[in-house]
Amino acid sequence: MKQRFINRREAIKAAAALGTGLAMGGLDLLSQSMAALSVYKPLDPVRIGLVGTGSRGTYLLRILTNLKHNLVKAVCDIVPERAANAQKIVEEAGGPKPAAYTKGDLDFQRLCETEDLDLVIAATPVDWHVPVCVSAMKNGKHAATEVHAAYKLEECWQLVETAEQTGLQCAMLENYCYGYDVLMILKMVRSGLLGELIHAESGYQHDVRNVRFGQDGSLLWRAQDMLTHNGNLYPTHALGPVAQWMNINRGDRFDYLVSMCSKSRGMNVFAEERFGKDHPSAKQVYMQGDVSTTLLRTVNGLTVTLYYDAQLPRPFDMMYRAQGTKGIILGTSDRIYIEGRSRWEEWETTAQYRKDFGHPLWDTLGRVAGQYGHGGADYIMMYRLIEAFRTGQPFEVDVYDAAVWSAVSPLSEVSVAQKSKAVDIPDFTRGKWKTNRPVEIFEA
Amino acid sequence: MKQRFINRREAIKAAAALGTGLAMGGLDLLSQSMAALSVYKPLDPVRIGLVGTGSRGTYLLRILTNLKHNLVKAVCDIVPERAANAQKIVEEAGGPKPAAYTKGDLDFQRLCETEDLDLVIAATPVDWHVPVCVSAMKNGKHAATEVHAAYKLEECWQLVETAEQTGLQCAMLENYCYGYDVLMILKMVRSGLLGELIHAESGYQHDVRNVRFGQDGSLLWRAQDMLTHNGNLYPTHALGPVAQWMNINRGDRFDYLVSMCSKSRGMNVFAEERFGKDHPSAKQVYMQGDVSTTLLRTVNGLTVTLYYDAQLPRPFDMMYRAQGTKGIILGTSDRIYIEGRSRWEEWETTAQYRKDFGHPLWDTLGRVAGQYGHGGADYIMMYRLIEAFRTGQPFEVDVYDAAVWSAVSPLSEVSVAQKSKAVDIPDFTRGKWKTNRPVEIFEA
Repeated sequence: MKQRFINRREAIKAAAALGTGLAMGGLDLLSQSMAALSVYKPLDPVRIGLVGTGSRGTYLLRILTNLKHNLVKAVCDIVPERAANAQKIVEEAGGPKPAAYTKGDLDFQRLCETEDLDLVIAATPVDWHVPVCVSAMKNGKHAATEVHAAYKLEECWQLVETAEQTGLQCAMLENYCYGYDVLMILKMVRSGLLGELIHAESGYQHDVRNVRFGQDGSLLWRAQDMLTHNGNLYPTHALGPVAQWMNINRGDRFDYLVSMCSKSRGMNVFAEERFGKDHPSAKQVYMQGDVSTTLLRTVNGLTVTLYYDAQLPRPFDMMYRAQGTKGIILGTSDRIYIEGRSRWEEWETTAQYRKDFGHPLWDTLGRVAGQYGHGGADYIMMYRLIEAFRTGQPFEVDVYDAAVWSAVSPLSEVSVAQKSKAVDIPDFTRGKWKTNRPVEIFEA
Repeated sequence: MKQRFINRREAIKAAAALGTGLAMGGLDLLSQSMAALSVYKPLDPVRIGLVGTGSRGTYLLRILTNLKHNLVKAVCDIVPERAANAQKIVEEAGGPKPAAYTKGDLDFQRLCETEDLDLVIAATPVDWHVPVCVSAMKNGKHAATEVHAAYKLEECWQLVETAEQTGLQCAMLENYCYGYDVLMILKMVRSGLLGELIHAESGYQHDVRNVRFGQDGSLLWRAQDMLTHNGNLYPTHALGPVAQWMNINRGDRFDYLVSMCSKSRGMNVFAEERFGKDHPSAKQVYMQGDVSTTLLRTVNGLTVTLYYDAQLPRPFDMMYRAQGTKGIILGTSDRIYIEGRSRWEEWETTAQYRKDFGHPLWDTLGRVAGQYGHGGADYIMMYRLIEAFRTGQPFEVDVYDAAVWSAVSPLSEVSVAQKSKAVDIPDFTRGKWKTNRPVEIFEA
């Protein structure tokens, strides 16, 4: 396994060489020094293996071919045609034809073992995120996974431990952290516009029932969870931005949660109307409640109301409410109130705030980004991903974020199943949250 | 104690006389029969004793003098000038001068014992609500109290038991149940526009810090609770309308809740800015967290997210979100989405719904009501109060509603103090919730 990175020992040596006088073994000093240096070996180009070239993987690939400082050298998919299509995309963008790994479910392992790469991206169905990332890291490659990272608590720990043992990155591609509004709110929070942050509310509130059933009314594989799970099954889009506003793992951490689900009627009502009252999908008992609500509390006393509301008819609405001692913003409603600035107790739009608080990444990249999906957030995220690896810095959605944002899913289910009892949220950072530095306001 | 009402025994006799063949002792049958008959003796005029003639009491008095079928015969206040002012208001409206009871804190007892009245209204500070109502009922008068009814669980039970033992009404004047939007939502729910109701979210979200401190910065008596309490201290305005949408105590009931509070910073920040960093109020430790969030679940599987958010700068916003299997409405945002009616997954305003779903009380009374407070809700509530007593019907916010909506306050504090553990919500109706009929869509 070739060393492609600076591990902790080398970082400490480097720090000593710089004459900073850091003591060996002090984890908090180490964090500070690692943040100040290139923690990892800078890479240019970042040589990438893309595992999963379905619609999402192909889409990320198109963005990558439009960014500099990276080269997709290998692709992997269980469907050979998809891999061939990915190869074509790279060639049409002027790159050398990537190697293709299409020998079934486990061929990503051969890619990880064989290829000389810096980073493996997992754009597979969720069940394969952990195996692909672990294989990458065990073979000396950084990993980056689509959301969410893992389903089970023990898999969250597996990602953390593998990353720590190998000294490699395991990033998560949480694109909702790069939307215009949530990045504007991040800048507002950092600048003190909202005062001390106290509370946030957000939710994955998106009626997805029409993608859970096939044309014949059968429940698709991706929706089988509705039969056996009951909780917040998709927390990271809503929780990610909130966690960044609140410096989770970087000065604060989630302490515990309580979770509750309503009854389940939405799936049955949908199936009855689409496929008829006697269709098996209409008569099926679904465990997943229609509206899942989770309350989280941080060690520093901030609270979060988190929804998962994906099987009732409604417009898409993430909410993104952030509230502090000087004001409050309702992100998706474009409503803000800042004491002493807004008219007394009257909402206003964010129009007059965008100049000062629009995030610099959007100022610079917004026009290009807008040509891509999710309103441009995907492009900005991939820009930042490549930039982080190019400069040898930790990507801002790291393995600890991937672990805790994803862990809310199984933990919420434990709470729901036990009359909403309080469930402690593990400290995946094992204490480093106290001294890790907050996510920067990155420029482009 | 003169009998002014039909008690359970008489109701059963009356039902038997009507030949309905009801069995003696069956509580659910009794509820049905009581609902079908004048449960109580019709009263015209409703002869009222008003205890508490401060700003709220005086305000209710002005509405009463502009309604028919009632006569305020006695007033009571610890401040003689306020009682005198109340007497003047009645006289100026053309009524006989009410008797005045001004001999201190307990003089309401003398009013209850002495006066020949049908109804005693408690518009005193909260601490006196229960004593006034109990005294009224024990002296053979119906009672109606301002919100909230009681602070402690045992007091909620005391109101229920006194009302049941005396066979009298103990209503609660929850004016937020009469706002245009919440009554429109009630009619929408009843008509099936939202489908089966699944979830609601509301909150008393109103920055009231400026009424908690005196000009000299001292914490006022009404805010002393902030030092020793931590939970949802004011639940009924937000919960009342939701409870009516959900038929709480009338087909469903609240099962349990979990509650959580953020840290407390708002009071300190306010006091620092207004009175200086060294002022005792700025350095005081306040127990009450800035944002209180409670999740409630009903026996039938509906859920409620309930906020109490009264000490951070923000516009007033009760939210009033109601969500079901066919659509969703955000009451205070004037946003609605009805599947098959609205443009696909797009919010619209309620403009085109008001004709069909505006509540008949507002259709008829809206213009007059608008001259009064809380956008007209106060007038419509008092209209309904008098109408209920005039016709001998239970007022739609009865003692069981008063008890359970108010009980959320002490119960939330128990949960907050024990890491948000689940707290069972008592069934004050002792089983009657299963067969009680839902609140009607009243006409005027």
